[in-house]
Amino acid sequence: MSEQTHFLLNESDLPKAWYNVMADSPLPPTPVLRPDTLEPVTPDFLAALFPMELILQEVSTERFIDIPDEVREIYKLWRPTPLIRARRLEKALGTPAHIYFKNESVSPAGSHKPNTAVAQAFYNKAAGTRALTTETGAGQWGSALSLACNFFDLDLEVYMVKVSYQQKPYRRVMMHTYGAQVFASPTDRTNYGRSVLAADPDNPGSLGIAISEAVEVAATSGGAKKYSLGSVLNHVLMHQTVIGEEALKQMDLAGEYPDVVIGCVGGGSNFAGIAYPFLRENLKNGQRARLLAVEPTAAPSITRGVYTFDYGDTAKMAPVVKMHTLGHDFVPPAIHAGGLRYHGMAPSLSAFCDAGLIQATSVPQKTTFEAAIQFARAEGIIPAPETAHAIRVVIDEALDAKAKGEKRVILFNFSGHGHFDMAAYENYLGGKLEDYEYPAEAIKAAMEKLPKVGLPA
Amino acid sequence: MSEQTHFLLNESDLPKAWYNVMADSPLPPTPVLRPDTLEPVTPDFLAALFPMELILQEVSTERFIDIPDEVREIYKLWRPTPLIRARRLEKALGTPAHIYFKNESVSPAGSHKPNTAVAQAFYNKAAGTRALTTETGAGQWGSALSLACNFFDLDLEVYMVKVSYQQKPYRRVMMHTYGAQVFASPTDRTNYGRSVLAADPDNPGSLGIAISEAVEVAATSGGAKKYSLGSVLNHVLMHQTVIGEEALKQMDLAGEYPDVVIGCVGGGSNFAGIAYPFLRENLKNGQRARLLAVEPTAAPSITRGVYTFDYGDTAKMAPVVKMHTLGHDFVPPAIHAGGLRYHGMAPSLSAFCDAGLIQATSVPQKTTFEAAIQFARAEGIIPAPETAHAIRVVIDEALDAKAKGEKRVILFNFSGHGHFDMAAYENYLGGKLEDYEYPAEAIKAAMEKLPKVGLPA
Repeated sequence: MSEQTHFLLNESDLPKAWYNVMADSPLPPTPVLRPDTLEPVTPDFLAALFPMELILQEVSTERFIDIPDEVREIYKLWRPTPLIRARRLEKALGTPAHIYFKNESVSPAGSHKPNTAVAQAFYNKAAGTRALTTETGAGQWGSALSLACNFFDLDLEVYMVKVSYQQKPYRRVMMHTYGAQVFASPTDRTNYGRSVLAADPDNPGSLGIAISEAVEVAATSGGAKKYSLGSVLNHVLMHQTVIGEEALKQMDLAGEYPDVVIGCVGGGSNFAGIAYPFLRENLKNGQRARLLAVEPTAAPSITRGVYTFDYGDTAKMAPVVKMHTLGHDFVPPAIHAGGLRYHGMAPSLSAFCDAGLIQATSVPQKTTFEAAIQFARAEGIIPAPETAHAIRVVIDEALDAKAKGEKRVILFNFSGHGHFDMAAYENYLGGKLEDYEYPAEAIKAAMEKLPKVGLPA
Repeated sequence: MSEQTHFLLNESDLPKAWYNVMADSPLPPTPVLRPDTLEPVTPDFLAALFPMELILQEVSTERFIDIPDEVREIYKLWRPTPLIRARRLEKALGTPAHIYFKNESVSPAGSHKPNTAVAQAFYNKAAGTRALTTETGAGQWGSALSLACNFFDLDLEVYMVKVSYQQKPYRRVMMHTYGAQVFASPTDRTNYGRSVLAADPDNPGSLGIAISEAVEVAATSGGAKKYSLGSVLNHVLMHQTVIGEEALKQMDLAGEYPDVVIGCVGGGSNFAGIAYPFLRENLKNGQRARLLAVEPTAAPSITRGVYTFDYGDTAKMAPVVKMHTLGHDFVPPAIHAGGLRYHGMAPSLSAFCDAGLIQATSVPQKTTFEAAIQFARAEGIIPAPETAHAIRVVIDEALDAKAKGEKRVILFNFSGHGHFDMAAYENYLGGKLEDYEYPAEAIKAAMEKLPKVGLPA
C-alpha cells in the first residue's frame, strides 16, 4: 500500500479502447422499440437521430472498441484524471476505511460529461453532420457538448430546462463562450414546445420536454442536424468507461482493490463509467467489489420506480426502452436542488440492478449537502450536488467500517465540481432546503401511462 | 524535446523550500515605513498585524526557507500542479512558438492564492492566533484564505469590496462553504468604514478601503486577530515561488527552456511566483529568459504609475513602501471587469522593473477577453479575467514569433479559472465591455497626496 495521496498516470496510460459491458453481460438484451408502433427499432429510425457509427456502437457486442486518435488527442487535454486518496476526510471521520476518488471534475467543462461529448462530436463530424441538438438540465451536459462541438467545428443548439436557464445564467454563459446557442425550453421553436406553451405559458420546463424539443429539431431537419444524448444509451455509458479503466490501473498503483465502488446516478453514465470495468472483473473473477449506485429520494428511479418499458421523453418521440422509470411525465419537485432528474435509467444499468449485479440506494438532499460541505472542508474541492449524493454514501460506508472496526477500501467517482451550483449551497447554508420523498401514489399513477408493451411478470 | 502535452511531477518532487529572491537581489533593499511617522517600521509595529515568523520571513535574506511539513501536506491536495503545452492553441495560431502554461487553477479555490494562504494560516495558528482578517476584491484571495483558515481551524473575517459582494454572490457562498464570515465593505464594523459611509452611504467600496477595514480590525483586537494580505509583501511573493520551482523542473522534463516568462500582475504575487526562480537563473547564468509582467490599462501601476513611497491602503494605516503606484486613493473605473485592481505593486517587483531586470506591459480589456475566448476554445479551460491579461500577451508573442519565423519558447502562469467570473464573459459577449486607459492627469493629481518622504530623483 502506497503512502501517496495522488495516483497519476502518464499520457501513454490513457486507455486505447472503451469497454463494452454488453460483451460480458450474462443477461439477455432487451429490445429498443419505436415509440409510435412499439415494434423493435430499425437502423433507419435511429439514423434520423444518430450517425451510423454510434448506432453500431449502441448494438455492438465487441468487448473493446478502439478510441479514435482524434478523440484521444482531446482527452489528453485533461486525461488521465487523478485518483486521489481522501486522507484528510478519512482522518476527519476517524475511520479505518481507505477512501479513494477519481477526480473527473478536472475536465474543462468540470465533469465527466466530455468523455462522451467529444466522442459523439467526433463521430458526427466524421459522418458529415453539420449541427447537433441536445437538452440540458443542471447544465453539465450542455457545457460538455458545447466544448466538444467547438473542438470539431459543429454548430450546437442546446434546449435548456427553463427553470435552470433562469437560475443558472453562468452555465448558459459558459456554453456561449464555447460558441453554442442556448434556448430556454419549452421554446416556440418546435411543435412540441409550442403545444406545451399553449397549454401553460409559464411551464418551467423539464428534462423530458427539453429532450422532446431537441429530438424534434433533429428528426425534422432532413438530416442536417443530429441529436446527442448525455446519458442512458449504451454507447454513451461505454464512452465513460475510460474512467474505470484508468481507475483499475491507479488502484493497482495504490496497491489496493476496492471493496465497494460508488457513484451517483441520474441516467447512469458516470456510475457506469467507473463501475462497468469493475463489473467485468467481478464477472470474470467472482464477486470482488460491491457496486453501489446512489440516487436522490426526490427522483428514485431504481429504488422506487418500476422496471418496465417506457418512453425516453415526454412527447413520446424518443425510443421506448426497458428501464427503471418513474413515468415519462415525471418532473422532480422544485425543492430538489441537484441534477439527477431524469425519469428513467440506463437500460443496461437497470438490468444489472434487476439481476442483483449492482445495488442501488437513495439519499435525501439535506444530509447530502451536509456531506458535500464535510468533504469540501476536508479535501478542499467543492462537489457538484450530484456528486454529493455519492459522497453521502461514501461517508456512511466509512462510518460503518469504523463502527465495525474493519478496514474497507472505498472508491467513488467525483463526477463534477460545484462551481456553477453555489446557489444550491447558499440555499442549504441558509436553511432553505427541504427533504422530499417521491410519493408511492405518484409512481402508481405514472404507471398507468406506460406504453402497452407486454410487461414482465 | 518531448512529444507530450502534460508534464507532471510526483508528490516527492514538491519543493521542500520557498525561494527568497532577496538573497540574490543586486539592488539595495528599500525601507518599510510607519504610516504615522514615516520612520522605518519596528517589529512591534508589524507584530500587531502579523505573527513573528512571517515578519522574519519578510525581512529575511536567506536564499531558501523550508516549507513546514504541515503546509506541504496541504499543498499535496493539488500540488505539484501540471505544466501543459498548449498545442491546440499553437496550432490555432499557426505559430512556430511553443507555448507552455503552469496550471494553478487546479487548486480547490481555483487559483494560485492558496500557496500563500495555507502558509500564512499555518504560521498564525502556530503563533496562537485565533482569527484572521483580510480583504478581497474579485474574490480569489478571500476564497483561498477561507479554505486555508478552514484547514487550520482559524476564524476568518473577509472584508469584500461591496460592488464585488453584490456582483459575485457565488464567491461569497464559496467562502461561507469553507466557514468564513464575509462583510460588504465599507461596513459599519470599523471606524474607517463608518467614516466612509457617513460621507457617502452608497460608496461601492475599493480594495484600499477594504484593506483599511481589515487592518483596523486586527490592529485594534488586542492581539486576538491578525491580518493577512494576499499579495505585495515579500513573504507572500516568496510563498508563491513553489510555482516557478516546479516549472523549472517541468521545463526540464519538456526538454526546453523559456525564452520569455509571462504573468499578469495586480499586486504581483502570481507573476513573482513563476518568475523569481527564473530571475535567479538569469542572475546566476546571465540573461536567459525575458520576464514580462502584464497589467490592465485600467490599472497601470508599473507602466504608467510612479516609482515612489506610498501608503499601502486608503486610510493610511498600512505601512508605507516604495513601489510603483497610482496613488492610495485609486479606484479602478467601474467598466474594468477583471481583478488586478490594487493601486500599488509589490516593492520587490517594482524595484526589479525599475532596474530593468523585469519588463512590464499593459493591455486593454476587450482584446484581453478576445484572447480569453480564443484560449478557451483551443484548450478548453476558461481563464479568469486576470489570467487573460497574460494570455493576451502570450498570443501576441506567439504571433510575433510567427511573423519573424522564429521558434520561441513561451511559459506563462495560468493563475486561475474563470468559473466565478462568467458575468464578465457575458458582458464581453454581449458587447458591453469598453476599453479604458487610466488618464495621466489622474495619476499626476494622485501624486500630490503621496506621503512626504524624500523622493528619488
